[in-house]
Parts: sequence; C-alpha cells; structure tokens
Amino acid sequence: MKLEVVKGHGTENDFIVVPDLDGQLLLDTELVRRLCDRHSGLGADGVLRVVRSDRHPEAASMAAEAPYFMDYRNADGSIAEMCGNGVRVFVRYLQRVGLVEHSAAVATRGGVKRARLHDDDTIDVDMGAPRALADRPVVTAVFSDRDRPPRHVEAMALQIPNPHVVVILDSTVELAALDLSRAPDVAPSLPHGQNVEFVVRTGPCAVRMRVHERGVGETRSCGTGICAAVIAVVERDRAAATGISDPEGESWTVEVPGGRCQVSWRSDGADRNIHLRGPAVLVGEVTLDEAWLSS
Amino acid sequence: MKLEVVKGHGTENDFIVVPDLDGQLLLDTELVRRLCDRHSGLGADGVLRVVRSDRHPEAASMAAEAPYFMDYRNADGSIAEMCGNGVRVFVRYLQRVGLVEHSAAVATRGGVKRARLHDDDTIDVDMGAPRALADRPVVTAVFSDRDRPPRHVEAMALQIPNPHVVVILDSTVELAALDLSRAPDVAPSLPHGQNVEFVVRTGPCAVRMRVHERGVGETRSCGTGICAAVIAVVERDRAAATGISDPEGESWTVEVPGGRCQVSWRSDGADRNIHLRGPAVLVGEVTLDEAWLSS
Repeated sequence: MKLEVVKGHGTENDFIVVPDLDGQLLLDTELVRRLCDRHSGLGADGVLRVVRSDRHPEAASMAAEAPYFMDYRNADGSIAEMCGNGVRVFVRYLQRVGLVEHSAAVATRGGVKRARLHDDDTIDVDMGAPRALADRPVVTAVFSDRDRPPRHVEAMALQIPNPHVVVILDSTVELAALDLSRAPDVAPSLPHGQNVEFVVRTGPCAVRMRVHERGVGETRSCGTGICAAVIAVVERDRAAATGISDPEGESWTVEVPGGRCQVSWRSDGADRNIHLRGPAVLVGEVTLDEAWLSS
Repeated sequence: MKLEVVKGHGTENDFIVVPDLDGQLLLDTELVRRLCDRHSGLGADGVLRVVRSDRHPEAASMAAEAPYFMDYRNADGSIAEMCGNGVRVFVRYLQRVGLVEHSAAVATRGGVKRARLHDDDTIDVDMGAPRALADRPVVTAVFSDRDRPPRHVEAMALQIPNPHVVVILDSTVELAALDLSRAPDVAPSLPHGQNVEFVVRTGPCAVRMRVHERGVGETRSCGTGICAAVIAVVERDRAAATGISDPEGESWTVEVPGGRCQVSWRSDGADRNIHLRGPAVLVGEVTLDEAWLSS
C-alpha cells in the first residue's frame, strides 16, 4: 500500500488532505486517528479526503454542480458536515494540482459550497444562511478565568450548520484570562453539544475571539465559530439599535489565536449568505512509510 | 529551495529528520520553530539534522569513529547535547537510507553514542555512565495532584547528561492523578533547570513513569528521563539494602505514556554504562512546499 497526502492549514486549523479521486481507499476511523495523532502520526485537526463526487454515494447528486466531494473527518474519526477552515485548504489543494483556478464548487455533507480564490492568497467561501436555533436563542454559559470564581453569562445559540454558543465579553484582558482548559458549561445544553466562542469587540467592524470546540478543547481557530461570533455581535447591535441595521456590504475582521479572517454578507436570491474569507496554506507533501501504514 | 525531510518518533517523542549530509542548509532558529509548530508546520518535539561529521566543526574530531553527526535542536530552536529517543530515530533513518545495517556510531554534542539495531525492530543505545550531581543529590520537589494540596517530597537529582529530578511515588493511582500542567517546583533548583520524572514501581524490574520536561511541559516520553527513573529506583533499593546490589545484567522495563523501553547496565572498561532500548518508527517522507518555505 502506498499513500501520498498533503498537510495544510487555515489560520492554524490543520488538516491532512488525502487524494482518493476514485474513492478506492478504505479510510476507516483507525486510519484517521493514526494520521491525526500529533506524536505517533502526522498530526492534524482532521482529514479532508478528495473524492470525485460521482464516485461517492453521499455526493453523487451534487456531481453536476460540484465535481469534488470533501469527505471531512474529525481527528477522532467521526464524520462532520462541514469545516469552514477545512474547505479553504481543500480548495487550495484543488488549485495546486490544477483542478480549479479562480473559483470552485465543493460538494460537502452540508451541501455545495462555493469558493473564490483571490490574488492576495485568501479564499472566500459562501457559508450559506445561518439558522438560529428553533427556540429562544439565548442560553446561559458558565465559565472561569484564572483569577475569579465561575461566571454565569447570557449567550446566543446558533447553527451554521454546527451548533455554537457565543459569549460576548467586555475586554481583551478578560478574554486573555479565560481558562479554556475545560469545556464551559451551557444551560440548557444544545442537543448535540456545542462549540463555545468568546468574543470581544475591538473596533467598529473588528472582533477578537477564542474558541472551545466540542470534543477537542481550545483550538487556534474555528471557521463556523468565526461566523457565529460576528453574527452574535451584529445581532446585539441590532437589538440595541446601536449598529448598522443592515450588515450587507460590511466586512468584519476576526482575529483568532491562529490568524485573521474576514466575514461579510451578500445577498443570494432570497437568502442573505455569510461569507468567510481567509488564508489557506499547504505545508508539504507526505509519502507515508509503508511499514507505518501496515503496522 | 527544495527541502525533503522525514517525520519519525520513538515512544511518541517525535522528530523531524533533516538530511543535510554536506552541511549546506541554513537551519536557523526560525526554521526549526516553523518546522516543529504543530499547527502551522509539520509538528515535532525537535529536529535531527544529519550531517557528515567531517563537514561540521562540532563533530570533525569524532569523524573517524562516528561518520554522521546528529545536530539536535529542541522545538524552540535551542541546541541540546543529546536526546535518548531522538538518537534511535536518527539511527533508524540511517538504516532506512542504507548508511548503517546492524550497528551505528553517532556523533552528538554529548560525545559518540553507539547503537545496535535488533531484529525485533528495537534499537539499543549506550547512554554512557550517569553522573550524580556534585553535591548531595537530594532535593525537594513540590507538586500537586487533582485532589490534594501541594506535597513536598524528597527526590534525587542526577545528570545523564541532562539534569533530572526523580520523585518516587507509591501507587499508579497517585501517578495518574498528578497535575503536570505546570512545572513542579524543585528546591534547590538545578542551575539549568531540570526535567522532573515521577515513577512508581510496578514489578521487580518494572516501573511506570510520567515526565515534565523543562521548557516543554508534560511529554509522552523522555529517553534520558527513563534512564534517570531506573537509576533512582535502583539507588533507593541499594540504600535500603532491599534490592540487588549489582544491577549488571538486569533489564528494567519502563512504561511511559508513549510506549515502553528497556534499561540495562553493561560494563565498558572502567565504567558501567546504562543502555536504553526501545522502538524507533518512521512515519513518512515530506517534501516541504516551496511557498511555505519561502513565506
């Protein structure tokens, strides 16, 4: 068995791209975990398998629109719908091997995602229209920082399409002092758990964020979480009637520990879709050792 | 610029092997840090540059005995004398490219290290004779576990050649409960800091260990720390006259979070040297992306 893969990252959310155009590879949970192990394997937050859409049962219906399917797996081997930073790395790979040039449509378990590749080496992805959770989108988040007892704060719950809870804090000092070594508590908890974003406004259209991802811990970045953070801040402005009532055309800058992304809105028919734009870097091509693979 | 490297690990202490036989590469602190970054680079605990000894000023005097020099760097770019798990990975690389077969002599900043490659895929390295620190080798270590207030315990300080402090605990439950998210305090502290090993005896010649490495945090394994742990247990036996007074011929098994090694003693002239035997695995060959390298 011979396996060649590519390591890449988007704002330090890192991935192993596994090219498997004909869908021949048995990419089981065990292999995903071994690849993603940061000490005994290559190390990554997840795996992005590249399969021709017409060769994969979950993507065949999208094949006419989006010829390549992003089969995304979390580092623990579980399947996820989408990954905001991962889709950029996936598109960067398609560009590098000459399969796309200035734009791309990618089949994902969250539907077709459209991307544009910019000259400044960023990639913009249409993340679709966010859905608020059905009931009142307000929950209570409980969290600690290094110097104070646990705090109970009102937070916003939303799905894009993963479940997120966003807590808006007042200062970057507070943000830096947060202890995210344990998952913040959320009441009521969302049915499938949640990522929790902590966000501070740092300018008219600028925020800084830290994130705790369900089942992972604090991470350097989270694409859908970046979108969730901006939505929550815009919604708070709207409710307080202090901000711009229509975010169309605005571009927000979100600073995360792993880098910087832009979030904007654009109308697409009846929906107003959220766009996430950021870097996508390929680190290197890896030929996995045959003895390692078969061990 | 084109750079091809190899990722490997020994008991999950992981390394990037950088072949540079003619010593042409400018491997500066910045490149080491970028390579070792686990999210924006490849990720590793350190870099092992392979240079012909006669091409490197620090190794030229060893060239007749040991033709290849292990230029070891920690993940932060600092230079280290030796790395017990790293030298096995270095030797495995030399074997893979056909430069050694059943034995190897490696030039390191800690002198020439001799290794034997065994049929069971382990590699045995002569780590030399350990030196106790000059003054009374007893210090006090202060550490916490999840459920109890900080404890002050007598511990043994030794160098092989890195400085180590070994704390012997009574039970594997205690060992598992340790909070090593912060560095244990040691009084008096050793001049250049120390790694701290926590060890529990699990059989006549068997121990289990966890380690906190200076400047790194808790790691999956530490080669010289594994040796230090066994020496401390043997010394305690000797002091209590409960154990075998001469460890020659004994083989100890040390279980660490990243796997298992053997430690034994063998006479070598006037000295009784300590040998560390364990696995060394190559994960894959990496061709670094030219844009990443030049960014």
